[in-house]
Amino acid sequence: MKNKIIKPKTLKPGDTIGILGGGQLGRMLGMAAAKLGLRTIVLEPNVDCPAAQACNRHIIAEYDEPTALGELVNACAAVTYEFENIPASAVQYLEEHVALLPNSVALEKSQDRLTEKNFLNDIGIDTAPYYEVNSLEELQSVVMSPDFQQNLAGILKTRRLGYDGKGQARVHGTDSPKQLLEAWESTGKVTCVLEGFVNFIREISVIAARDINGNVECYDPAENIHRDGILHTSTVPAKVSNAVVENAKSIAAKILSELDYVGVMGVEFFVTGEGSLIVNEFAPRVHNSGHWTEAACTVNQFEQHIRAISGMKLGDPSRHSDCVMVNLIGSDVDKLDSLLAEPNVQIHLYGKSIAKKGRKMGHFTRIS
Amino acid sequence: MKNKIIKPKTLKPGDTIGILGGGQLGRMLGMAAAKLGLRTIVLEPNVDCPAAQACNRHIIAEYDEPTALGELVNACAAVTYEFENIPASAVQYLEEHVALLPNSVALEKSQDRLTEKNFLNDIGIDTAPYYEVNSLEELQSVVMSPDFQQNLAGILKTRRLGYDGKGQARVHGTDSPKQLLEAWESTGKVTCVLEGFVNFIREISVIAARDINGNVECYDPAENIHRDGILHTSTVPAKVSNAVVENAKSIAAKILSELDYVGVMGVEFFVTGEGSLIVNEFAPRVHNSGHWTEAACTVNQFEQHIRAISGMKLGDPSRHSDCVMVNLIGSDVDKLDSLLAEPNVQIHLYGKSIAKKGRKMGHFTRIS
Repeated sequence: MKNKIIKPKTLKPGDTIGILGGGQLGRMLGMAAAKLGLRTIVLEPNVDCPAAQACNRHIIAEYDEPTALGELVNACAAVTYEFENIPASAVQYLEEHVALLPNSVALEKSQDRLTEKNFLNDIGIDTAPYYEVNSLEELQSVVMSPDFQQNLAGILKTRRLGYDGKGQARVHGTDSPKQLLEAWESTGKVTCVLEGFVNFIREISVIAARDINGNVECYDPAENIHRDGILHTSTVPAKVSNAVVENAKSIAAKILSELDYVGVMGVEFFVTGEGSLIVNEFAPRVHNSGHWTEAACTVNQFEQHIRAISGMKLGDPSRHSDCVMVNLIGSDVDKLDSLLAEPNVQIHLYGKSIAKKGRKMGHFTRIS
Repeated sequence: MKNKIIKPKTLKPGDTIGILGGGQLGRMLGMAAAKLGLRTIVLEPNVDCPAAQACNRHIIAEYDEPTALGELVNACAAVTYEFENIPASAVQYLEEHVALLPNSVALEKSQDRLTEKNFLNDIGIDTAPYYEVNSLEELQSVVMSPDFQQNLAGILKTRRLGYDGKGQARVHGTDSPKQLLEAWESTGKVTCVLEGFVNFIREISVIAARDINGNVECYDPAENIHRDGILHTSTVPAKVSNAVVENAKSIAAKILSELDYVGVMGVEFFVTGEGSLIVNEFAPRVHNSGHWTEAACTVNQFEQHIRAISGMKLGDPSRHSDCVMVNLIGSDVDKLDSLLAEPNVQIHLYGKSIAKKGRKMGHFTRIS
């Protein structure tokens, strides 16, 4: 039996928000909270993390360290997170001792690709065709099924803990037993989902927010381009019809409402040639494809999230400018000098000292 | 003989900037530095100051405490400040041990109203008529002079340490000896300047920046309205002709160039009915009347200052929206709920816990 869950309340300037995770999303949440007069404490084991540089206090500990969690709930009026793979024990402790927003249901659904897709289909939202794969034998059997053979190809993904293209392998209907074995081994032989490929012409995402009274506000969809499995650019407006825009927003709103969600969520869609929308995945947090809101909107996604979890009214999601957000990955950050020289470019670096390959070092947004 | 002064250099992400003063200006400078990947250390005696909440490190000490200054110069690639009344001993120590930007000449001129006005007149820039007043006798004699009798009224201001209307008394050509005595006593009987009133129809200010190579960029002038001696609103564009805009920018640029200034400066002007410009004063720092740049420009005045003192290229000062910035003074901050509900309003609170009368608690900018 579940213990009592702490309900959200309205925060006032001077109150403190806890943030699990000390990356760039936590950093930008901390900055947004400060602008509303709120304080932040980040819980993160990495000493020199990006968020600690911009928050009021840093508790250096593992996310499930009981003493650290106790300190956090004692100091905070609400706790949120910047990543979805929070240990279950921490989630349970937090939701029983402080308002944890977004709630544990959203975390549970999004931590597991199979649960997430089942949930979406259950509430009538389309996903790519998918197949549960718990063993090499199951993988072989799915690939041989007429259903998959029609689709001919897909991606085998671990159910948990994958992001930015990690823990994924391409699988084709024509793969040899050896190729299937390699695919299975590359995921670490853990429980997986095989997602059939979808014929889509573009990828878009909606950054949606829901407040404690159930009001939902959505920013216009961004059109996203990935490179090496990592988001490269988000362009707003996306090249889609008004009908697609409204449909994407209404699907996002449905997901948030069904989850009784409070906070900002990023919902990724595939847009087919016929203008249908297929949800790829959702992330129960501020999202890289929403960074453009910082340069082009009066209230950005970080402030919107802080407003939502603080029981404040949501901001107007309209934008004053069209824009393109570009991620600075690894050595891209060496372009800083030329970006500084360009008008209408807003730069945001994350305070990371080493520009490793594939590491998100910052982003910039060009407005027009 | 003056010792060698440390020259500015170009900073890279990861480098650290020191900030003297822990108020809201320091706080917003810290946030802007973080967005460029730079770190900040604030030196400020007040433990729970606004800036400490948003900077990487806080040295809690008086501004002239030698050990603290030593720590600061050891950790920083450049040092700047958020207020002009820095003790002379600290200024001297800093400029001999680290790049102090803006330089000590700008501080020296702006710390003393008489020196400031002499400097402006020396470089051909108009000020209000002014008279040095070092004693009650001098005050009486100035007030009786034909020159002052023609202007009939003015404000007696302390030469040093006055801001937001403190240390000021109105003086009229018709004042009795008793009234003059009261005025003299109200300033604390220190060396003063008597400024003759100017017939002006509006007050404007220009936020100007100069980089280490001598390039100057100016934001468009804001039109300022004061209430009880404290800035109330800044509106952009100001209701002035293009000729006045260009003249104001060129006067600001001249001040910065004459001082070999590096960083952002706020220059306040009176605009007469004939469109002439009279400089009221300048502040060698980011300025309250430039807070609107945060909501209406891609690069705000805080980032512009950080870019300048870091040897980076200045940002484009053009704005994407017209706007009005309104200060939240004392209990004004209780309006937060209604501001949150308003579209196109960007709110910025300073993290101050007690809303004392006359205290700047935050500001908001309404864009259009």
